[in-house]
Amino acid sequence: MPQVLHAGSALLPQGWVDQVRITIDGGLITGIETGVAPQPGDERAALLMPGLSNLHSHAFQRAIAGRGEVRGAVRGAGEDSFWSWREAMYRFVPRLDPEAMQAIAALAYIEMLEGGFTRVGEFHYLHNAPDGSRYADPAAMARALAESAQESGIGLTLLPVFYAHAGFGGQALQADQARFLSAPDSFAQLHGACAEALRDLPGAVLGLAPHSLRAVTPEELAGLAALAGTAPIHIHIAEQVREVEQCLAWSGQRPVEWLMDHAPVAANWCLVHATHMTEAETTALAASGAVAGLCPVTEANLGDGLFPAPDYLAAGGAWGVGSDSNVKIDAFEELRWFEYGQRLALRKRNVAALHPGQSTGAALFDMAGRGGAQALGGSFGIALGNEADLLSLDPAHPALAAIQPEQRLDALIFAAGRSALDGVWRRGRKVVSGGRHHARDRIAARYAAALRRLLA
Amino acid sequence: MPQVLHAGSALLPQGWVDQVRITIDGGLITGIETGVAPQPGDERAALLMPGLSNLHSHAFQRAIAGRGEVRGAVRGAGEDSFWSWREAMYRFVPRLDPEAMQAIAALAYIEMLEGGFTRVGEFHYLHNAPDGSRYADPAAMARALAESAQESGIGLTLLPVFYAHAGFGGQALQADQARFLSAPDSFAQLHGACAEALRDLPGAVLGLAPHSLRAVTPEELAGLAALAGTAPIHIHIAEQVREVEQCLAWSGQRPVEWLMDHAPVAANWCLVHATHMTEAETTALAASGAVAGLCPVTEANLGDGLFPAPDYLAAGGAWGVGSDSNVKIDAFEELRWFEYGQRLALRKRNVAALHPGQSTGAALFDMAGRGGAQALGGSFGIALGNEADLLSLDPAHPALAAIQPEQRLDALIFAAGRSALDGVWRRGRKVVSGGRHHARDRIAARYAAALRRLLA
Repeated sequence: MPQVLHAGSALLPQGWVDQVRITIDGGLITGIETGVAPQPGDERAALLMPGLSNLHSHAFQRAIAGRGEVRGAVRGAGEDSFWSWREAMYRFVPRLDPEAMQAIAALAYIEMLEGGFTRVGEFHYLHNAPDGSRYADPAAMARALAESAQESGIGLTLLPVFYAHAGFGGQALQADQARFLSAPDSFAQLHGACAEALRDLPGAVLGLAPHSLRAVTPEELAGLAALAGTAPIHIHIAEQVREVEQCLAWSGQRPVEWLMDHAPVAANWCLVHATHMTEAETTALAASGAVAGLCPVTEANLGDGLFPAPDYLAAGGAWGVGSDSNVKIDAFEELRWFEYGQRLALRKRNVAALHPGQSTGAALFDMAGRGGAQALGGSFGIALGNEADLLSLDPAHPALAAIQPEQRLDALIFAAGRSALDGVWRRGRKVVSGGRHHARDRIAARYAAALRRLLA
Repeated sequence: MPQVLHAGSALLPQGWVDQVRITIDGGLITGIETGVAPQPGDERAALLMPGLSNLHSHAFQRAIAGRGEVRGAVRGAGEDSFWSWREAMYRFVPRLDPEAMQAIAALAYIEMLEGGFTRVGEFHYLHNAPDGSRYADPAAMARALAESAQESGIGLTLLPVFYAHAGFGGQALQADQARFLSAPDSFAQLHGACAEALRDLPGAVLGLAPHSLRAVTPEELAGLAALAGTAPIHIHIAEQVREVEQCLAWSGQRPVEWLMDHAPVAANWCLVHATHMTEAETTALAASGAVAGLCPVTEANLGDGLFPAPDYLAAGGAWGVGSDSNVKIDAFEELRWFEYGQRLALRKRNVAALHPGQSTGAALFDMAGRGGAQALGGSFGIALGNEADLLSLDPAHPALAAIQPEQRLDALIFAAGRSALDGVWRRGRKVVSGGRHHARDRIAARYAAALRRLLA
């Protein structure tokens, strides 16, 4: 039987509209009436808006959040960098089994829902047992992720990672990367097992992910693109200057330049980070129709650098945000600091708003919403046929007091943050009330117990 | 009668210590015992740490948070900048009376307490009536701030601003700056009336603030330094490139360079922003013993630029943080993005941690705590004689699960944020529980009503 949600004001594709009745059936939006009063039995919300997609997550890394900020913990007196952080992360990897993976991912996923994300793209590369051997079920770890999505309610786009090499030119993996190995002889089976793991998960999407240009040969990449077809295909690219230098040494081209020349990059592709690009690469990526997968909080934590937003936005490039390392999970902080990073670099304001009269917050939210959904094969917006993935705001939050509807997203993103988020619905089911996930206490306690066990 | 607070673990100057009994009398810490069990009647906290000082606030600007993010709202098709934002802020100023000031400041102050700040430095320049005439009580607006501090419980360092000129070389104020006018003929009286307004406020401190080098002549600045004596003296400086250019045109020197050569800058001084400095200026400021007043969230929102932290930290410079425009109020976001801005610019990690083995979060917290207290004439830390300004953390927060004590501040600042903050005490009185100020509902409702009236 359909359910109905009535909003005093709802963010529809054309903007904020008063008195909206939304009919939901089978998790999808099947009716939208505007300018109508609530009817008896309607569920009620004051301010309703669509949820965002989190296009890039390594859920297990939530467990090391806050544990990599001690100087020289890995390399002693040398300077800390992305690479020393990666070493610390690798040291944690051997301890994870599917049970721990589920405990950690479920916590990360409820934090995503509480932070404004209703779908996650899980860039999943922790495939094998601690000794590098395959689990009897090759999707044992993927299954833990699917169970976490089921338990939390978040939408899942699973991106099993192909990871066969440690460096450009087909280098073998290092010993501490054995759990990641997924190569030509095993990937199709893994991919099939992942499809099986998602079978009972409503709205699940299966894509795939060559880990990076370091991890695949050109021939392997071509095979993966063919296997993906029109499904989401994600790749880490140009996050670090060293990676650009190594790619140049290997191919004479920069990473994004090489990819554009050698792969059928199109609208189903997501290039994660794409931090270090020339103007020509930036324009080419925008023109390809692919999505730039930006992770402002993680890119700041890891000291990656800033995305060349002005050229990319001017060229109409698609983008979305991801919480990546999950060091902190908050959709609004991602959007706020995407914009703020650009302001600091350019010394001007309202960068994402491309036209006079446009709200920066509205521009950020709309671009990240559409780009994220595109990257994950999901939907975005309160529109017929979309998944009923919705957020409600606390109308009594001071930052929303006396604010005009067209400035509501500015107030939310810049002045309030997630403290103004009240309810979250995923496919019509309410999973967060008063900013707290309904299963928070249980999932948080299980997470804490798992960490005590892992770190004992 | 003294009260006693027992902490399972407390952050003392030497680090986290277990089983700490803190005796508080008259708002001050009068006893600290370690390694002792709680006694009947002790108030209890699991994890206890000191509150931070917010060294730079314009409380009334909280009311325009989220209202300045529409592109071209002030200047049409031109690029938005600090200066267009300032025009928008000036348009709001005429609407404020003391009643509205109190409604807004009280909201800002409870948000500060909920965000980890237990003292605020109010850089107060909105002195006069809307038509520019003086109020019968020259401290009418300052009194509204003192009442807001009293009502919220926050510690107040009031910094009445001297503001006599609109530009270098003694230019007269613009018409839209008439409410700010405080000049040689009136400032001493204003300063005295402010002292009177603070008389009944526990722990209040009176300083003063030449608004900027634009707003004072060299002779006026010398007079203000003499009037301040050893009390806090704050000045906006080198926030914008245009200001640096104008100072060079006027004096042949850059702002910080000029100030160091012409004013008795010492440990009671706070140079707010100090964004645009040469290496020589940076080193000179550090050597002066003054505090750099950094406002990472506002400086990002306004597109000011990044503070030259590496040289300044290497030279042992003192600094603290301020919420300035109050676009978003959160001590931990200020610290997190102070560090992250540096990581993005330098492409390395753990910048504020100067020594191998040091926690970045602990370094940030300690430096900002000490610098903020110095700048405001307050105290920092759980130590005898200090004000009992304390924060407690939620020990069940997932980001704190299985974390080592020495990484607790990393987990708080980078992984949890203010969601881990539970209780806040100011001079021993608990004003925040479960992350919410005890008077939040009433103060938020009055704030919303005031905004509706102002913006009608």
